[in-house]
Amino acid sequence: IWLCNVPFFTVPLARAHGKSFAHRSDLRQAKRILVKLGSAVVTRGDECGLALGRLASIVEQVAMLQNQGREMMIVTSGAVAFGKQRLRHEILLSQSVRQALHSGQNQLKDMSLPVLEARACAAAGQSGLMALYEAMFTQYSTCTAQILVTNLDFHDDQKRRNLNSTLHELLRMNIVPIINTNDAVVPPPEPNSDLQGVNVISIKDNDSLAARLAVEMRADLLIALSDVEGLYDSPPGSDDAKLLDTFYPGDQHSITYGTKSRVGIGGMEAKVKAALWALQGGTSVVIANGTHPKVTGHVITDIVEGKKVGTFFSEVKPAGPTVEQQTEMARSAGRTLASLEPEQRSEIICALADLLTERKDEILSANKKDMEHAVSRLSPAMLKRLSLSSSKLNSLSIGLRQIAVSSQDSVGRVLRRTRVANNLELEQITVPIGVLLVIFESRPDCLPQVSALAIASGNALLLKGGKEAANTNRILHELAQEALSIHGVKDAIQLVSTREEVEDLCRLEKMIDLIIPRGSSQLVRDIQRAAKGIPVLGHSEGICHVYVDHEASVDKAIKIIRDSKCDYPAACNAMETLLVHRELLRTPLFDQIIDMLRTEHVKIHAGPKFASYLTFSPSEVKSLRTEYGDLECCIEVVDSMTEAVDHIHKYGSSHTDVIVTENEDTAEQFLQQLDSACVFWNASSRFADGYRFGLGAEVGISTARIHARGPVGLDGLLTTKWVLRGEGHTAADFSEQGSMTYLHENLPVMTRNFA
Amino acid sequence: IWLCNVPFFTVPLARAHGKSFAHRSDLRQAKRILVKLGSAVVTRGDECGLALGRLASIVEQVAMLQNQGREMMIVTSGAVAFGKQRLRHEILLSQSVRQALHSGQNQLKDMSLPVLEARACAAAGQSGLMALYEAMFTQYSTCTAQILVTNLDFHDDQKRRNLNSTLHELLRMNIVPIINTNDAVVPPPEPNSDLQGVNVISIKDNDSLAARLAVEMRADLLIALSDVEGLYDSPPGSDDAKLLDTFYPGDQHSITYGTKSRVGIGGMEAKVKAALWALQGGTSVVIANGTHPKVTGHVITDIVEGKKVGTFFSEVKPAGPTVEQQTEMARSAGRTLASLEPEQRSEIICALADLLTERKDEILSANKKDMEHAVSRLSPAMLKRLSLSSSKLNSLSIGLRQIAVSSQDSVGRVLRRTRVANNLELEQITVPIGVLLVIFESRPDCLPQVSALAIASGNALLLKGGKEAANTNRILHELAQEALSIHGVKDAIQLVSTREEVEDLCRLEKMIDLIIPRGSSQLVRDIQRAAKGIPVLGHSEGICHVYVDHEASVDKAIKIIRDSKCDYPAACNAMETLLVHRELLRTPLFDQIIDMLRTEHVKIHAGPKFASYLTFSPSEVKSLRTEYGDLECCIEVVDSMTEAVDHIHKYGSSHTDVIVTENEDTAEQFLQQLDSACVFWNASSRFADGYRFGLGAEVGISTARIHARGPVGLDGLLTTKWVLRGEGHTAADFSEQGSMTYLHENLPVMTRNFA
Repeated sequence: IWLCNVPFFTVPLARAHGKSFAHRSDLRQAKRILVKLGSAVVTRGDECGLALGRLASIVEQVAMLQNQGREMMIVTSGAVAFGKQRLRHEILLSQSVRQALHSGQNQLKDMSLPVLEARACAAAGQSGLMALYEAMFTQYSTCTAQILVTNLDFHDDQKRRNLNSTLHELLRMNIVPIINTNDAVVPPPEPNSDLQGVNVISIKDNDSLAARLAVEMRADLLIALSDVEGLYDSPPGSDDAKLLDTFYPGDQHSITYGTKSRVGIGGMEAKVKAALWALQGGTSVVIANGTHPKVTGHVITDIVEGKKVGTFFSEVKPAGPTVEQQTEMARSAGRTLASLEPEQRSEIICALADLLTERKDEILSANKKDMEHAVSRLSPAMLKRLSLSSSKLNSLSIGLRQIAVSSQDSVGRVLRRTRVANNLELEQITVPIGVLLVIFESRPDCLPQVSALAIASGNALLLKGGKEAANTNRILHELAQEALSIHGVKDAIQLVSTREEVEDLCRLEKMIDLIIPRGSSQLVRDIQRAAKGIPVLGHSEGICHVYVDHEASVDKAIKIIRDSKCDYPAACNAMETLLVHRELLRTPLFDQIIDMLRTEHVKIHAGPKFASYLTFSPSEVKSLRTEYGDLECCIEVVDSMTEAVDHIHKYGSSHTDVIVTENEDTAEQFLQQLDSACVFWNASSRFADGYRFGLGAEVGISTARIHARGPVGLDGLLTTKWVLRGEGHTAADFSEQGSMTYLHENLPVMTRNFA
Repeated sequence: IWLCNVPFFTVPLARAHGKSFAHRSDLRQAKRILVKLGSAVVTRGDECGLALGRLASIVEQVAMLQNQGREMMIVTSGAVAFGKQRLRHEILLSQSVRQALHSGQNQLKDMSLPVLEARACAAAGQSGLMALYEAMFTQYSTCTAQILVTNLDFHDDQKRRNLNSTLHELLRMNIVPIINTNDAVVPPPEPNSDLQGVNVISIKDNDSLAARLAVEMRADLLIALSDVEGLYDSPPGSDDAKLLDTFYPGDQHSITYGTKSRVGIGGMEAKVKAALWALQGGTSVVIANGTHPKVTGHVITDIVEGKKVGTFFSEVKPAGPTVEQQTEMARSAGRTLASLEPEQRSEIICALADLLTERKDEILSANKKDMEHAVSRLSPAMLKRLSLSSSKLNSLSIGLRQIAVSSQDSVGRVLRRTRVANNLELEQITVPIGVLLVIFESRPDCLPQVSALAIASGNALLLKGGKEAANTNRILHELAQEALSIHGVKDAIQLVSTREEVEDLCRLEKMIDLIIPRGSSQLVRDIQRAAKGIPVLGHSEGICHVYVDHEASVDKAIKIIRDSKCDYPAACNAMETLLVHRELLRTPLFDQIIDMLRTEHVKIHAGPKFASYLTFSPSEVKSLRTEYGDLECCIEVVDSMTEAVDHIHKYGSSHTDVIVTENEDTAEQFLQQLDSACVFWNASSRFADGYRFGLGAEVGISTARIHARGPVGLDGLLTTKWVLRGEGHTAADFSEQGSMTYLHENLPVMTRNFA
């Protein structure tokens, strides 16, 4: 109240630069950043003791950003807490120096504490706190300066100008100002009394001090760290509480604040008011957790990199729904999709197939736009994957019709029926998995294909395509939604904005049931790392082997090796290692293999055993676990089929492995013993593919050992549920005193109609 | 060489206390601990900048251990590196103070650096390093002392005694000594020249200094932190390199050292020699990574808690194999098990069933031992779960025979056959998953049951039981191995030592394919958290609902609600929330339900809508997502079946949900729309159980949405592989220029024989 009338605190003056950022990703451009550290961040310990490690990490991040050329400022709390600890220690020491030094015990801990006055603590703690900051920043050759302010400094215009000019001078000299309230001389703050007006803000607490300074200094970004994750729409801990990723000033009415707050003076409501005030003044704000061990290392740099940490305050409300809203819309429409008749899902897919040819011109013109933009940026191979043509669309359309046919018998198929007891019947039936997230690079033809598989299996689908195909993906997605509209399930397939970070999507643990990355091994590995709690379907490596037995046919061996290696060397099902039975060395077959590989320009690397057999060997492999993905392969010698199996188990990736032999016994043993997802006899490794397997299409090839394995088509997008129909049956009916007994009689099920 | 002859450095003298620990878990008892920080740990930066956060975290951990009453010492490196940075900065500043201060740019970074002398750097860095340690330790009220030593200090007996007594005095006063070599006055170390003799050690580098001091000070534990994970059996990075968890002096010949080392003077070989020397002197040693961000927070406390971090040096080689060796043995024997005929697997299970009754006395006497030990420690409910009886063993045996029967048709079943082209045939067949890890608490009857399921499905099995059932588990496991021996696959089932930490097992990512926790929700949650990269089968919550429709039959509703809640309230398939159609309020049915629940002593909590309908309502629920696991439940009112479905989707755990109604349409819609693993009509939720479903037995109930769902029996322990048999077919044969076309003709498969 006592500050309300000072004109300085009204908004118009502060709103001078007014350039807060609209999107998180824009935060990368923030040049001047103010980091506000709540006292929980500076002094409260986590599981491992005190807050020192956390503070050091924050200093690291601030110094790093400073070294990138940004202008960093810190508003710190914690002096009182620091001082408490120090004074306690000093008083006890002066009381009993001798006992403490000679006891050999931690008696200090047990001694009762004198009552300490907060302002004295602040005075005592301030120097220790600054010494710590200085010792830490010195390690980064970063200089710090201490600034203590009281609210009176803001009343006086002269003082305010001095402060302003001091701070600017410090920033200009690459010095990090560390600002705190001068608690030793100001009265202890009263809670919350003057935060009634939105346009007026006091500097009673460090939240408002930080907001005030950020606007005054025209900071681009204010990062307010405390021990809460951010802003929730209801009191955290209640059933429906959701952390808000982005908060818009207009949304304020949708927030319910808790009655009590865990975060010092003012609590969350005061934090939000301070944040909104700073936002109105043109400074972007993120409120985030600076204490949780998991984010300790990187919370500040993560925010500056645009990652979804805490709550971002933005004045610009985006037109479309958020990705969380998209996911909810997709799940809801997906449930309707799953409850449609199979014929209806089939109709939707056929409609999409029609649209692909009917609206060819629109698609190709969008694709042309992407191609024009990409031509100078992408490699020729990538460009080829990006481009669509009339004939590609035709064959896509044909493929979709095949999926439409197989969709007739997917959802709701009865796999097992059991008469558990009289009038108690159990069915296990296929159901969709739920919400799929497919992340794909470049290839826009992936979009209708995956959409068709999702529709056929009754799954909701989130699609995240690459920026390079944005225009093509947009029109293809529109067509998919147009087809879905036939049966009122338009929202079941959603295209996620290219602004969204893959890593953020991978954290939507409770919203997404399965992630399917379609792209490079690196993409898959990145996603496997990022996706904690959501299963990822796919494989990160394809180290495929062809083993040529001593009883192999020359013709077949040559044909299969050539095809496995050369048909498409970058494919995951291409051969990487050729295993040759020892008896074949120095035979004409072996020479023919080498000749063929030379003719095809395949670079050969020798495994250690192979190298030891040769006088002049090719370069020895660095690792037998290499995926070359190019016209290169490793050759290694084995003594027997069993040794080949052992080699593959040890160095392979359980993707696809081949034996070439005329001996059926050897072949069957190989097929039986080998653990890989695909095991072939006298056939090229290149057959490991959903289309070639006759699955219609695939969402990918899985090397996982649970759920779907190998090429994954429609079946891999289904799970099951158990349906039990009774007449009031209870478990107690079957107890020793009960009247019923289990029958467990298997009942016939309709098997698939393989006409 | 120049120190070899000093008698002080021979082992006998140092070996005075000789009490190194045999097992990692013993490290918890370590009272005096020396932590050696390599220069990489102190100064080398990770992805987020410099090493400050890491160092602060180490200080935190040391201070915490010190506060626990342990005596902590630090041997630190890093003075040279610190000094380099400082001198560089100083020189540049003195060269160009003005430009640097007024440029506003980070020009310092770009300026060329003068060459700095290492000893000058050490002198300049030492004070900064100590200041940093002191500033950090001060935050924990922990006092530090600086000790600089040269190797000459160890030559002179007087000096040595002084050093020794100084260190002891410091420890007595709860001061952490921080020790470094006095690099400013000693010649720079020469690499490795005097480490030829094992019994002699120099203090040229900090590894040997630390070892020397640890033994001299009779430390219980020396933790040597650098930037390597520990000791590998081959040079790290090579195909076969494995991190050694424990290293025994006799194993030294099995190590291949790399030619080059990344870790400063001496490298790994010198580290190992220093460690072995300390071990001979009676100090336990752990070499671990102190730089990797992931372990930064806790590497020291993790080691002291006995966790598997880095390489532990032990003189006592345990009798049995390590868990890694057990896993390898299990996988190998498991592959043989999977290749047996179904009848053979069935024989093994029957043999185990026989042994359970034949060797009843042995089993019961082992169980008696466990019971006697547990009687004062466990609750009556837990004791009941631990105890075995003759009749329990009989029914176990009967259950096993049922599994034996169903095992006939598990592994190698053909699920799909396709004629891809002429003479190119594809089969999808069932195969075991691989190596299962089952973690179970208390219940020893779990062991034979799970073993039988693993044998039936051809999987290798690691069993980790609770300490309280150690004797019973041991004899049951012996019997399982005896049965497996019939067909030479004894090792396929391994019992993991009770010493092993569950968390360590969950990290064997490349060795274990599936983890199945059987125990409390807390156990499941802990394992889900710990198991990164290994799928976990199970559920952590069972929030099951019964929805009573307005067209429900009174009798059925009462029976089903009573059974669902009261039959076994602690079970995961017990009802937690009762949803009642609004029209039922104030009807006789509703009163009867309430009366029944009161008679059964079920405590009722009201959902918000239910509470709003009542004048005097029971206590309102805190959360609609509560699993009471006791004679308690929540009652909530819904307006329709659809609202019930929405409520369950929002607050349920997708485990088991029930509708009670006489209206078949309503029921079928509920069964169709609801997403849960088990959906029941007019039957108790308690039927969600593998045995009751007729699956023979279950390994658990899964609420996952991929792979197995609901009660998981034999089928959930199987995956598939694809077998393709050709005659030299290549993908190129099917190209536009090729001679072949895809047929994709579905061939009949033998379906299960449901006689």
